[in-house]
Amino acid sequence: MKHDLHALLSPASIAIIGASSDFAKVNGRPLKHLMEKGYAGKIYPVNPKYQSIKGIACYPAVADIPGPVDLAIVAVPAKAVALVLRELGACGVKSVIVFSSGFAEIGADGRDLETEITLVARESGMRLCGPNCLGLINAFERVIATFGQYADGATPPGPVGFVTQSGAFGTAIAALARRRELGLGYFVNTGNESDVTFAQVMREVLADPRIKVGAGYIEGLRDGAEMIALAESALAAGKPLVLAKVGKSSSGARAAASHTGSLAGADAVFDGVIRQFGIIRARNEEHMLDMVEGFAYCGLPQGCGLGIVTQSGGAGVLIADRAEELGLTVPVLGTATQRALQQTIPGFGASGNPVDVTGQFLADPALLRESVKIVMADPQVHVGIVWLQLMDAYVDVLIAIFEEIKAQVDKPFVVCWVAASDKALQALRSRGIAVLRGAEPAVDAVAALVRYAAMRKAWQADAKARADLQSQQLSLLATSTSGPVSSLEAAQLLRQCGVSLAETRFAKNSTEAVACADALGYPVALKIESREILHKTEAGGVLLNLADGAAVAAAFTQVGVNARRHSPEASVSGVLVQQMAADGVDMAVGLHHDPAYGMVVMVGLGGIHVEVLKDVVFRKVPVTTAEAGSMLDELRAKAILNGVRGSPAVDRAALTRLISSVSQFGIATDGRLAELDLNPVRAGPDGAIAVDWLMICR
Amino acid sequence: MKHDLHALLSPASIAIIGASSDFAKVNGRPLKHLMEKGYAGKIYPVNPKYQSIKGIACYPAVADIPGPVDLAIVAVPAKAVALVLRELGACGVKSVIVFSSGFAEIGADGRDLETEITLVARESGMRLCGPNCLGLINAFERVIATFGQYADGATPPGPVGFVTQSGAFGTAIAALARRRELGLGYFVNTGNESDVTFAQVMREVLADPRIKVGAGYIEGLRDGAEMIALAESALAAGKPLVLAKVGKSSSGARAAASHTGSLAGADAVFDGVIRQFGIIRARNEEHMLDMVEGFAYCGLPQGCGLGIVTQSGGAGVLIADRAEELGLTVPVLGTATQRALQQTIPGFGASGNPVDVTGQFLADPALLRESVKIVMADPQVHVGIVWLQLMDAYVDVLIAIFEEIKAQVDKPFVVCWVAASDKALQALRSRGIAVLRGAEPAVDAVAALVRYAAMRKAWQADAKARADLQSQQLSLLATSTSGPVSSLEAAQLLRQCGVSLAETRFAKNSTEAVACADALGYPVALKIESREILHKTEAGGVLLNLADGAAVAAAFTQVGVNARRHSPEASVSGVLVQQMAADGVDMAVGLHHDPAYGMVVMVGLGGIHVEVLKDVVFRKVPVTTAEAGSMLDELRAKAILNGVRGSPAVDRAALTRLISSVSQFGIATDGRLAELDLNPVRAGPDGAIAVDWLMICR
Repeated sequence: MKHDLHALLSPASIAIIGASSDFAKVNGRPLKHLMEKGYAGKIYPVNPKYQSIKGIACYPAVADIPGPVDLAIVAVPAKAVALVLRELGACGVKSVIVFSSGFAEIGADGRDLETEITLVARESGMRLCGPNCLGLINAFERVIATFGQYADGATPPGPVGFVTQSGAFGTAIAALARRRELGLGYFVNTGNESDVTFAQVMREVLADPRIKVGAGYIEGLRDGAEMIALAESALAAGKPLVLAKVGKSSSGARAAASHTGSLAGADAVFDGVIRQFGIIRARNEEHMLDMVEGFAYCGLPQGCGLGIVTQSGGAGVLIADRAEELGLTVPVLGTATQRALQQTIPGFGASGNPVDVTGQFLADPALLRESVKIVMADPQVHVGIVWLQLMDAYVDVLIAIFEEIKAQVDKPFVVCWVAASDKALQALRSRGIAVLRGAEPAVDAVAALVRYAAMRKAWQADAKARADLQSQQLSLLATSTSGPVSSLEAAQLLRQCGVSLAETRFAKNSTEAVACADALGYPVALKIESREILHKTEAGGVLLNLADGAAVAAAFTQVGVNARRHSPEASVSGVLVQQMAADGVDMAVGLHHDPAYGMVVMVGLGGIHVEVLKDVVFRKVPVTTAEAGSMLDELRAKAILNGVRGSPAVDRAALTRLISSVSQFGIATDGRLAELDLNPVRAGPDGAIAVDWLMICR
Repeated sequence: MKHDLHALLSPASIAIIGASSDFAKVNGRPLKHLMEKGYAGKIYPVNPKYQSIKGIACYPAVADIPGPVDLAIVAVPAKAVALVLRELGACGVKSVIVFSSGFAEIGADGRDLETEITLVARESGMRLCGPNCLGLINAFERVIATFGQYADGATPPGPVGFVTQSGAFGTAIAALARRRELGLGYFVNTGNESDVTFAQVMREVLADPRIKVGAGYIEGLRDGAEMIALAESALAAGKPLVLAKVGKSSSGARAAASHTGSLAGADAVFDGVIRQFGIIRARNEEHMLDMVEGFAYCGLPQGCGLGIVTQSGGAGVLIADRAEELGLTVPVLGTATQRALQQTIPGFGASGNPVDVTGQFLADPALLRESVKIVMADPQVHVGIVWLQLMDAYVDVLIAIFEEIKAQVDKPFVVCWVAASDKALQALRSRGIAVLRGAEPAVDAVAALVRYAAMRKAWQADAKARADLQSQQLSLLATSTSGPVSSLEAAQLLRQCGVSLAETRFAKNSTEAVACADALGYPVALKIESREILHKTEAGGVLLNLADGAAVAAAFTQVGVNARRHSPEASVSGVLVQQMAADGVDMAVGLHHDPAYGMVVMVGLGGIHVEVLKDVVFRKVPVTTAEAGSMLDELRAKAILNGVRGSPAVDRAALTRLISSVSQFGIATDGRLAELDLNPVRAGPDGAIAVDWLMICR
């Protein structure tokens, strides 16, 4: 493609192929909107039937257009699209939006047609948005290149860039954003994404300095690298990106497969990778807009302490509940803060936070204003929520109060005004104040601010470690064959990346085994060594806690017998003699190749936590030790790592080093490694070592 | 109290003490609303300053009121309330609402005052709602006995009875309900609940045949028995009860303690007990109203199969995701259903459910109607969600379609119409159709229908088992002393209730220990027996897997030495010799006395699941085996019970029998037992037995 996306998103001229004078039609609606909403560029309707439409000159063919065309809108039947694209390409058109459906979404025939039009566009150097899409709006430049319903109402520009793979759901989200007066600077529906993808558009959108925050709705991604590149550029620019992605559950994945025609992919991998790169995931459309609203209006907090001021004790409790759930703290206020509150609020008795000003402030509006200011000034408070309800009769008073608070308080805060009148909402928003509809949405918005700020700070602090990791160009497995790698060879490779493994020796016979054990020190474990026996324990090929030479000798015979009984055909090369690991928590750490994101590292607590409860976290390799620490923090059962039943906490530094080393191993073996499974990794108070490992090459 | 709550909630006459002609004042607002909204009973303003107010005769004193008074409204300063109540009591007034604040909520002085007014009311036989409350509305009879903001707008009656402990938060919820056109038949704020409680009012409200569903907001309950009685009567009447209760987290609990002046209590116990008695808990105010809306409009489904029809594939996926999360199934549609859909929807290719009709139905409205009818007719589909967005230009068409669907489909369904116009919402609701604002709220509403229906069915099916359990009048621990009970005595008591315990014998010396072990069969465990050593393992007082007599003899000496080292002062009576339990999953089952709900039984997975992850479920005793089964189903890690890593599933019947037996033990020892802890209970494929137990009496 010779053109970037600028012509698509900010065209100086738009041609509408087959433009209709009937403004209710798909081919008439963009023309109507461009005219009515005041697009300042050139508009070139193309249709041999008309000389002009509503006073705008109409051209019989693309070739007749008198000037250069940045963007052409195409809504002809699917079978005619290729021909039209050829004409457009021949005339040097830079980009095209194809509304037409009847492509990949209808099956094999459509897929062929889609491949054809994509090739045509590519050969002509045109960028293609769609097919099967609603088109786009650039509200700043009043580019209304869509036939979607969202364009029917007001489309005021604002700091939010919204890109959606789904037309219908995207329209719904855009309409909800409009109701919140959350201006969408861009609305783009990418449809089938035969050329232009979600990640590409979002990246271009976020490059616009007028856009503060990106919001996206996606159903599936084909190119993980593109997504990561988007995330990294957004992080670098300090523009938060909030994504809703469907297809979390197995029913959802089945539905997604049937809907998009491709497997939704491993949602847990997607979740881990976007988190790694600072993208915030939304549960659903309202959750997305709650968080986007926070980002659109608020600065970033310097910490996670939440100050709460309410006119209802119960609402304060609900906010505190949700805050704790999302990892915020609700600090007890400092002595000075409490004293100041006592002087301000008559009869104020509680230790505060949540601070309940009750309805008293209606008699004395300064009470609310001063309370909020005092709470926000507490050094442990970094962000605030002020909760109100109804108060239709007091809207003017309240707006004045919040205007003063906004002017006098530096730290970010949001207002939660339940059942607020439209007037109240509009007034606050026009004064640059975020106002949410309920306690939970307010906490969600605030928690997103806190999380993004913390994550970006950590990302910046981790930059050097990340660069160091990425600069290491170790390449392993260059000569290895495919299939399982012998335990000793695997151990050697892993050690080259600094992965700690239990001391292990190979013995061909009983005498050697005893000698190895003597050298290692007792107790030891014996494990059968055979490339054909992958699951040694199930084959009876592992005996633990052997206390002396006699036990080792007996065990050597026993594992041989067991292995032959289990797998008569397997060739056994000998046994591994291994030092028994000290007590600790069993973890599982692994690598596998994800179709979208490439090599990913997985961490979980061992045993049932991984196998039954699926309590695992993924990241794209490599990960720094700091990032490995965030992985541990995301485990549901993370409390176990802090020590349970009197046992000490695990050596977190050793464990995160091991995870980071494994992730480096993933880089070093990318392209060759199919799967690596370190299970268990024994994490004790003084170290973390892999006790068993299985490595399989492609 | 000689009067029930009827006079409070449906008064035939209302006196307003200190009524004001200024309708903006607390004492003027009820009068205004009663007049304007057309209350048909007698209104008696009492104020020596006026002859009449707005044409209604005003009386100088309570004694001058010419007729009987069902309800008096009191809003005088706190210190004057007692005197007014005495006058009211002397005149035979049946009930009173005290708006005044300045009671328990302000601390010790207020508490004394509150005790005094409660005594006065009690002595006079009057019921007292409040103090520190907004009062109430009975919308059917137009009793507007409140000064709250909610009364300022329309208060149309409807099938929802709403009771709230919080005035401000309750007002917010009522206002949100009004916006949804969810008619509140009753709005009651119980305030400090010095006499009339949440549970009492809700029970009276649900007794009104015009009320279909109860909705409540609570912060804390003092009387668990009253709550259970409410739940049971609601279940018997088939009226769902949806409650939002704050104070889940530790921050929330701290805030609640500071707000209500009492500890929020163990939220997990509250959660388990209300679930046991069929109450549905809401996460927050919107979640509550979503579910209430479902109940207000829909019948109950016969199963958990969800049919989904959308105009957006992505919305279908989001709905399927949430449905799976909430335990609904999204069945693959039957062959006949798929064939019928293929004949109806042009180009319909997917296997269906979610069924995506895309935007095509706008050209042919019958398409949507027929698709919904076909999906809902599938025998595996029990309840439906139809998802739409915006469609402002097609509201009339859509309303007609839904009206036909409603008339032709028997199974319950809800419409999810994102960004719907007010006109669309009103039209659907006026036709008796529930319409939710998003995919997740729609699934929440439907899941509540499914859960309530299943729960009520199970409750009815379990009635005989429950009655049998409750008829057993076993009474144990009548003579026992307080403190820890010896293991053998505890075992004997537990066995009387049918609790399975590992075979255990007592031995005073080494010879006896070996003889016991010989009799039990090897391997055995040895445990030190001393009422002063509660945690035997930590004292080194437990040795496991003793394979023969010699090992037992050696172990006898060892545990003695260990115990003396650990607790030199403890008197040791001997050892317990116990059969080793077969392999299985370790559970923990216990009993303790909850301040609100009395004896409760707890079940969890043993070890870290209970201790670190707090994955436990509570119920009030006794529980039937069916109810014990629901407890297991609520464990987050329940998948472990189905067998993991090749091990078989646990014997669920034996495990639920054990839990039920323990719960019976809780009944039999109520009043005496402080705590019982069976940990572990070993649940294997062929039985479940307690391996260790600790019983402490009060």
